[in-house]
Amino acid sequence: MTAPPALPEPAHAELDSMLSRKFGKEVANYFSGSPLNRVSFLRTDHAFLSQALKHPSTSFLLFNNLNPLVKSPTQLGYSLYKDVQSLIGEDPFTKSEEDLIKEYNSSTYIPQLIFLGLDDRNKEGLVYKDHYKGAPYFALDVTPKESVTTAAESLIASLESKGLEFSKGRMHLSLPPEEAAIYAAARHVLDWNSRNPFCAACGHRTFSVNGGFKRTCPPADLASSLDTSSVPRPPCATRTGVSNLSFPRTDPTVIMAVVSHDGSKILLGRGKRFPPLWYSTLAGFLEPAESVEEAVRREVWEESGVHVGRVVVHSTQPWPYPANLMIGAIGQAIPGGEEIHLGHDAELADAKWYTADEVREALRIGTSGIGEGPGPEYKEGGLRLPPGTAIAHQLLSAVVGGFLGGEAKI
Amino acid sequence: MTAPPALPEPAHAELDSMLSRKFGKEVANYFSGSPLNRVSFLRTDHAFLSQALKHPSTSFLLFNNLNPLVKSPTQLGYSLYKDVQSLIGEDPFTKSEEDLIKEYNSSTYIPQLIFLGLDDRNKEGLVYKDHYKGAPYFALDVTPKESVTTAAESLIASLESKGLEFSKGRMHLSLPPEEAAIYAAARHVLDWNSRNPFCAACGHRTFSVNGGFKRTCPPADLASSLDTSSVPRPPCATRTGVSNLSFPRTDPTVIMAVVSHDGSKILLGRGKRFPPLWYSTLAGFLEPAESVEEAVRREVWEESGVHVGRVVVHSTQPWPYPANLMIGAIGQAIPGGEEIHLGHDAELADAKWYTADEVREALRIGTSGIGEGPGPEYKEGGLRLPPGTAIAHQLLSAVVGGFLGGEAKI
Ligand SMILES: [Zn+2]
Ligand SMILES: [Zn+2]
Repeated sequence: MTAPPALPEPAHAELDSMLSRKFGKEVANYFSGSPLNRVSFLRTDHAFLSQALKHPSTSFLLFNNLNPLVKSPTQLGYSLYKDVQSLIGEDPFTKSEEDLIKEYNSSTYIPQLIFLGLDDRNKEGLVYKDHYKGAPYFALDVTPKESVTTAAESLIASLESKGLEFSKGRMHLSLPPEEAAIYAAARHVLDWNSRNPFCAACGHRTFSVNGGFKRTCPPADLASSLDTSSVPRPPCATRTGVSNLSFPRTDPTVIMAVVSHDGSKILLGRGKRFPPLWYSTLAGFLEPAESVEEAVRREVWEESGVHVGRVVVHSTQPWPYPANLMIGAIGQAIPGGEEIHLGHDAELADAKWYTADEVREALRIGTSGIGEGPGPEYKEGGLRLPPGTAIAHQLLSAVVGGFLGGEAKI
Repeated sequence: MTAPPALPEPAHAELDSMLSRKFGKEVANYFSGSPLNRVSFLRTDHAFLSQALKHPSTSFLLFNNLNPLVKSPTQLGYSLYKDVQSLIGEDPFTKSEEDLIKEYNSSTYIPQLIFLGLDDRNKEGLVYKDHYKGAPYFALDVTPKESVTTAAESLIASLESKGLEFSKGRMHLSLPPEEAAIYAAARHVLDWNSRNPFCAACGHRTFSVNGGFKRTCPPADLASSLDTSSVPRPPCATRTGVSNLSFPRTDPTVIMAVVSHDGSKILLGRGKRFPPLWYSTLAGFLEPAESVEEAVRREVWEESGVHVGRVVVHSTQPWPYPANLMIGAIGQAIPGGEEIHLGHDAELADAKWYTADEVREALRIGTSGIGEGPGPEYKEGGLRLPPGTAIAHQLLSAVVGGFLGGEAKI
């Protein structure tokens, strides 16, 4: 999204206020809320990408094996064009996409570069074709490998000597929300590129284009050539039309707070790797040709035996481990459908109904990440729940805060 | 989902009725609403799949080049176990998945078979472990190719001689909703299998398991062997942990009816291939690390220049061409953000604001599929809109029916 322009006070605020009363305020979950305008239609425009790369306002977020460079657990560490030139060369965008595909050589290693967008809050940013303004952001894979091993190791050593480090572990839940959103997009797209070096349609190597947001299957390859002409590759289905395989994958997932039919109790589950007493909402991948409501009812029944009727979507959360869109919902058990049976899909260690008061108290004093201890007020033996950065927490807060009852309170 | 069991009248209907008043009734879009229980956790259980395959109540939905066998435009044509035995053999489930992977031979062609689920409305169906009951449904690819060419051609000739045919074209919008949902799941999963014969992580051929819902990358291959022992393949990232690449892909898409800030007008767009006067809601793919609300705001701005503030999710629709989950939303323009600019992403031929009355009238007399003519009451020059099977139609109906205003009327 682009930040809304500065505008006069609403002339007609009635609908706006009525919508809030009726549906509640929008919940922006952690990892959403990026301040960047993706200007996705400029990703094929190499004149634009070339200017964006070299602009003095440009920031590069570096990753080593999918771990981002940070200054501290609450601050990403950005690099400048001059820092990364030893890896990417002066300008990988001097030729058009078309020409680069013609010259494709599968034996050339090119560090993955991603164009993330423009931050239009920066008034010193790039101005392109009058309309598109802001400080450009890129992500870059600096994992030492293949032909860039030495250059990458030297860059990493220089960054580490300045006190920066590549944050280990897959959770980065202490970043400010806007930084977390920039990191999430970068990680999602880098991971997708690194997971898909080959074409699933023909088995040959693919080539990154569209500022890192597309992998194309070139029709010929210089690597297998004995002279300077490319050797044609076999036909590939991704070349005869637009193919979803060429674009980043996002896996829709449903996650749901389920209430008993009378709304007094809440169903929680404990995964096999969760600590004792640490519960969360049920969740699972949406299947082919399911609506969100059907996926919620199926997953709850498969994991807990509970039959859900009514389902209402609450909010969504991007989750870049590696590529999920969490679709958060509130479900209501049907009368007589509340009996728990864990024997269908043996995924959970336990599932239980908790009262709204137990959940409310646990949200106040018992939340933490899976690997962490609860807060100081936590009482031994009490229910533990996920932290505020998890959509599960937001769903449970909404339920105990009255999302289902009367006027919306969230 | 499984059909809810027969139960006594609701004891506590207050919450149920209140939810309907507050959020509206659930909208089940075309292609959702499958009557089948997927029992997804039984897909690795070959004892179950073997019984399901051979049960007298079992139906096979056949596809030739992704076109389903039909009796008529409003009725799928199902086949029996005895019809398909010449293609699949007596029982492809006699060995376990583990053993089949050990014996993997990439030069063996196996027609793709998909286990779709159990229809528990059929009381003559299979009963498995007391809990799981119903008539099994499978989909099968009978495209004549490789080693099954002759058997498939002969099966197809025999079916066609009985008046059945493989329905051409990608739209099957005249099936009854439950048949459409069965077809949609079958097509989505068959298409995914046929699009992904190779592993995107290592470039080698993959092997269908989990009743057609997973493609695994076997560690060795008999095809390249000179004797009867398998030749090991290179290491593959999909073998060292659970990988999303091994499972069917579903692409989240946002589609949105956008109203002006005061709610009086509705934004519609005309794609470059739409007939003149045929408009629809805007739509586009959700990007990595976006919430649904962000994707709606970005897509509307990129395609039309309009700035959207508030976004409310209305309903979702599976769309198996090839693998979309359409997430339907209603968005509201911010004050002063209603000016149309088509120059960002040049995807639309036109975008326009229409009054609620114009849209209401077009929903009444001007709807049709893209290639079809409008109904008899249509007046030349009037606005044309998509048919009721499209979620765009449902979103527009909701808007003009008062979804945003006062009590929910849908
Ligand atoms: Zn290819
Ligand atoms: Zn592989």
